Amino acid sequence: MKNQSLTEQLKGSTLFPSSRKIYVEGSRPDIRVPMREISLSPFTDKQGVNHPNEPIYVYDTSGVYTDPSYTINIKEGLPKLRQQWIAERADVEERSNLSSEYGQIRQADTKLDAIRYPNVNTRPLRAKADKVPTQYFYAKQGLITPEMEYVAIRENQNLGRMNEGRATKIESYITPEFVRQEIAAGRAMIPCNINHPECEPMIIGSKFRVKINANIGNSALSSGIQEEIDKAVWAMIWGSDTVMDLSTGDNIHETREWIIRNSPVPIGTVPLYQALEKVNGKVEDLTWEIYRDTLIEQAEQGVDYFTIHAGLLRDHVELTNKRMTGIVSRGGAIMAKWSMIHDQENFLYTHFDEICEILAAYDVAVSLGDGLRPGSVYDANDEAQFAELRVLGELTHKARAAHVQVLIEGPGHVPVHKIKENVELQQEVCDNAPFYVLGPLTTDIAPGYDHITSAIGGAIIGAHGVAMLCYVTQKEHLGLPNREDVKQAVITYKLAAHAADLAKGFPGAQLHDDAMSKARFEFRWEDQFALALDPQTAIQFHDETLPNDENKKT
Amino acid sequence: MKNQSLTEQLKGSTLFPSSRKIYVEGSRPDIRVPMREISLSPFTDKQGVNHPNEPIYVYDTSGVYTDPSYTINIKEGLPKLRQQWIAERADVEERSNLSSEYGQIRQADTKLDAIRYPNVNTRPLRAKADKVPTQYFYAKQGLITPEMEYVAIRENQNLGRMNEGRATKIESYITPEFVRQEIAAGRAMIPCNINHPECEPMIIGSKFRVKINANIGNSALSSGIQEEIDKAVWAMIWGSDTVMDLSTGDNIHETREWIIRNSPVPIGTVPLYQALEKVNGKVEDLTWEIYRDTLIEQAEQGVDYFTIHAGLLRDHVELTNKRMTGIVSRGGAIMAKWSMIHDQENFLYTHFDEICEILAAYDVAVSLGDGLRPGSVYDANDEAQFAELRVLGELTHKARAAHVQVLIEGPGHVPVHKIKENVELQQEVCDNAPFYVLGPLTTDIAPGYDHITSAIGGAIIGAHGVAMLCYVTQKEHLGLPNREDVKQAVITYKLAAHAADLAKGFPGAQLHDDAMSKARFEFRWEDQFALALDPQTAIQFHDETLPNDENKKT
Repeated sequence: MKNQSLTEQLKGSTLFPSSRKIYVEGSRPDIRVPMREISLSPFTDKQGVNHPNEPIYVYDTSGVYTDPSYTINIKEGLPKLRQQWIAERADVEERSNLSSEYGQIRQADTKLDAIRYPNVNTRPLRAKADKVPTQYFYAKQGLITPEMEYVAIRENQNLGRMNEGRATKIESYITPEFVRQEIAAGRAMIPCNINHPECEPMIIGSKFRVKINANIGNSALSSGIQEEIDKAVWAMIWGSDTVMDLSTGDNIHETREWIIRNSPVPIGTVPLYQALEKVNGKVEDLTWEIYRDTLIEQAEQGVDYFTIHAGLLRDHVELTNKRMTGIVSRGGAIMAKWSMIHDQENFLYTHFDEICEILAAYDVAVSLGDGLRPGSVYDANDEAQFAELRVLGELTHKARAAHVQVLIEGPGHVPVHKIKENVELQQEVCDNAPFYVLGPLTTDIAPGYDHITSAIGGAIIGAHGVAMLCYVTQKEHLGLPNREDVKQAVITYKLAAHAADLAKGFPGAQLHDDAMSKARFEFRWEDQFALALDPQTAIQFHDETLPNDENKKT
Repeated sequence: MKNQSLTEQLKGSTLFPSSRKIYVEGSRPDIRVPMREISLSPFTDKQGVNHPNEPIYVYDTSGVYTDPSYTINIKEGLPKLRQQWIAERADVEERSNLSSEYGQIRQADTKLDAIRYPNVNTRPLRAKADKVPTQYFYAKQGLITPEMEYVAIRENQNLGRMNEGRATKIESYITPEFVRQEIAAGRAMIPCNINHPECEPMIIGSKFRVKINANIGNSALSSGIQEEIDKAVWAMIWGSDTVMDLSTGDNIHETREWIIRNSPVPIGTVPLYQALEKVNGKVEDLTWEIYRDTLIEQAEQGVDYFTIHAGLLRDHVELTNKRMTGIVSRGGAIMAKWSMIHDQENFLYTHFDEICEILAAYDVAVSLGDGLRPGSVYDANDEAQFAELRVLGELTHKARAAHVQVLIEGPGHVPVHKIKENVELQQEVCDNAPFYVLGPLTTDIAPGYDHITSAIGGAIIGAHGVAMLCYVTQKEHLGLPNREDVKQAVITYKLAAHAADLAKGFPGAQLHDDAMSKARFEFRWEDQFALALDPQTAIQFHDETLPNDENKKT
């Protein structure tokens, strides 16, 4: 097992019993939206009559990793399902070479051949002159893209089919045109770099299913590329909607290439981390030029969204003096230090227009980082945090003017009674741009259980309209998560996001709960396991005290 | 280890590092309120100057089990700290024998000597004629009892001492007189049977710290008495404020005696379960007489509160026909079946005045059970549930008229957006009697993780004013919890209850979070572990990736 990769292990596995991968076709044959169909057994009444139970369809983020008809080969990467859609729009062109200096240097370095992805695309796509290949621009033009249709089908999760067996039909407001409208209004976004054609489109917005993100990343303490891919795939299999690669160690350029080529979910990064590596960790040596080259390097690899801490202004730093825990965001701390050392305004703020120009050329979304997010419930909703949030509002409008898709990042650590204020202020100052928060942790006294302290905050803030939750693992504040920690955190966040979907009344979300409840009432144990977010754990817990097979039947 | 009892194991253990048990004395020397003092190390600044950090005091439910000066002997039971207080009020008298027929039969049965608690008190206390020894009655008379003073000190957790080091003092509204007022108004209660003098008083009410309950109980699948005591003590050590003994197997009378004599926290039961055992599980054979005898039997042993499903009326049963999951409360199902078989009104309802008379004579509190609590989010807040709740309101007034302390039980399974309505309706129809809920689970799709699906609901409902949360373990719906499951659930509920305390702005609650945050900011690792709800897990997680001792210092 140790020497076997996850993708090897997954072959023939039964992590999800009674499940089958299906694809729902859209208006054209190359729109094929994956879902997981869970078959249910009939209920046998006292007279011995069988009453069938219709299958349930659940959202599936695992890509072809769970498609038995597909043979995974990480050296070839995943199918490029968006390639044709991107080409058809005729607004992008191949570059003759990688545009970033760093990308070129790494590509030319033969010492890296041994760890390099075998088929690096050295002719990345970029917008043609005067063209804007972003979903936001298309939406504003009135164009419904295949990506928009794809996410509309995906959000509805075969509701039409599930409605067939129901006396009272569930109405869904989600249509491709609705998706377009939400994106055009800046209330939703589809992170999908034109250089990440492998990405299965997903939408982030308050009117849609609450999404979750898992952070991965190598570091001095962890090991190789296969392990990083495995971590990312592991998170997707359990339900992570996006993955952020926060690597800080060696060879992060090469590792990222492997991850993107093998990722069916959008990949986010914090380019500042890599820029800092390039100046050997010396904050004072950071320059706009190095950062700019990093943006282009990563955009041409296919990163779908960048966290950019452009809202932390020099004047904000002194507002943190009253804090219990200062600046806990790594990106925020870096930019605050840089501003202080150089006595200059944050270069991400002063160069924001140029940043947007780059992002628009690849349809990389900007995730406006909250460098001043509170690091304790004590600091929640303070002047520093909200001063930065107001600048994020200003930057939202700038990014929109440049046709860039926008996400807004939020805290962090917030006690229950202060959660709503965060959402309300964000919606106001950022004109309802989708909100993406970390947790938030609702108390600080339970290290080792911060997946739970934060899932409480996540469910509440999701119910208030936050569009995506960044997970927190049980190792938060203590150490680095291992594979089991990642799984625990993803499942915990899936259930929190789903609790928020129920609270929002998301069309059809409760069908999954209802199927479980009916299986419970009818003592259909195998169906309860199949319907569980984590079937194997449910089976294991059941078998610990009631191992008898009889206990799984009626 | 296997053959060693928990109480043996606890000797000299360091589950809680840097901690010391202290007692805060009240207005008389026999009011000694236990707390846990956590010592913190100084912060050493860059100039090498030490800045001391004041200790923190936390609520301590572990009784003398964590007092190194006390030698535990389960055959002798715990110190009877309330004995003198009860005697001084001169409103109770010793009976010449056990009053219940069943109690007498068990006591006379020499075959039970081997498993019997050695010093059963066969001269239990009971109210003198025309006297009412309940805390509710005392409060209405204007009397501040030692129990009331005790809980006032306990809720404040040495805030005066912690204020000494603070520039801005934290005000607390909690005084013995405030406690009396809340109890007199029926908004709070102190479960403390006159036959459980070992009980360390605690208060349940919306203006006080949110409490948690752990369910234990033997069954055909578990084993002996020592194991049951160990389970109860284990739950208290991690922070359970009360324990409900839901045993259904053999010798539950004898097991209960051992548990009560060794329990510093209030013990609750569902007498109906034992009554049903007495008729060999045949619901149709249940009678008021058997039930009544069971109430007296348990009241004289010292049970502090009884769950009584008196609000489920015969007419309510048909309201459950529309449900997804019918009646999931065991007590509810029993009484519904009894009503149907006999075509009679629930005898707990028809005999409620007599029940109250018995409870008042021992100061057993009534916890009005919600036999129609929803078993799925589908059934939440339905007609059946709220019809029963309205009857619980009627019974609240009856119990109050009889001077009985009252708790109201609530669900169960409730999606996030339907939680508030539960609290508002309960407060209205039950005139703000303290509300005690199970979870609630906010989604049904995560068996194996229901401690989390329900802790989300618990934190939210606690913030809305629910006074006590009954824990749900990760084995819920799947099997019986083992010791580790109990610990996980207690810690999870402690953090949820604490998140609710923060949201309520409970005086001083945030000092614990603040101490943790400051320790984090100052990289005082040992202090972070000591301040954690579960220090050993935090240490273990830390050491997995950063085992070096250096990483625990600055």
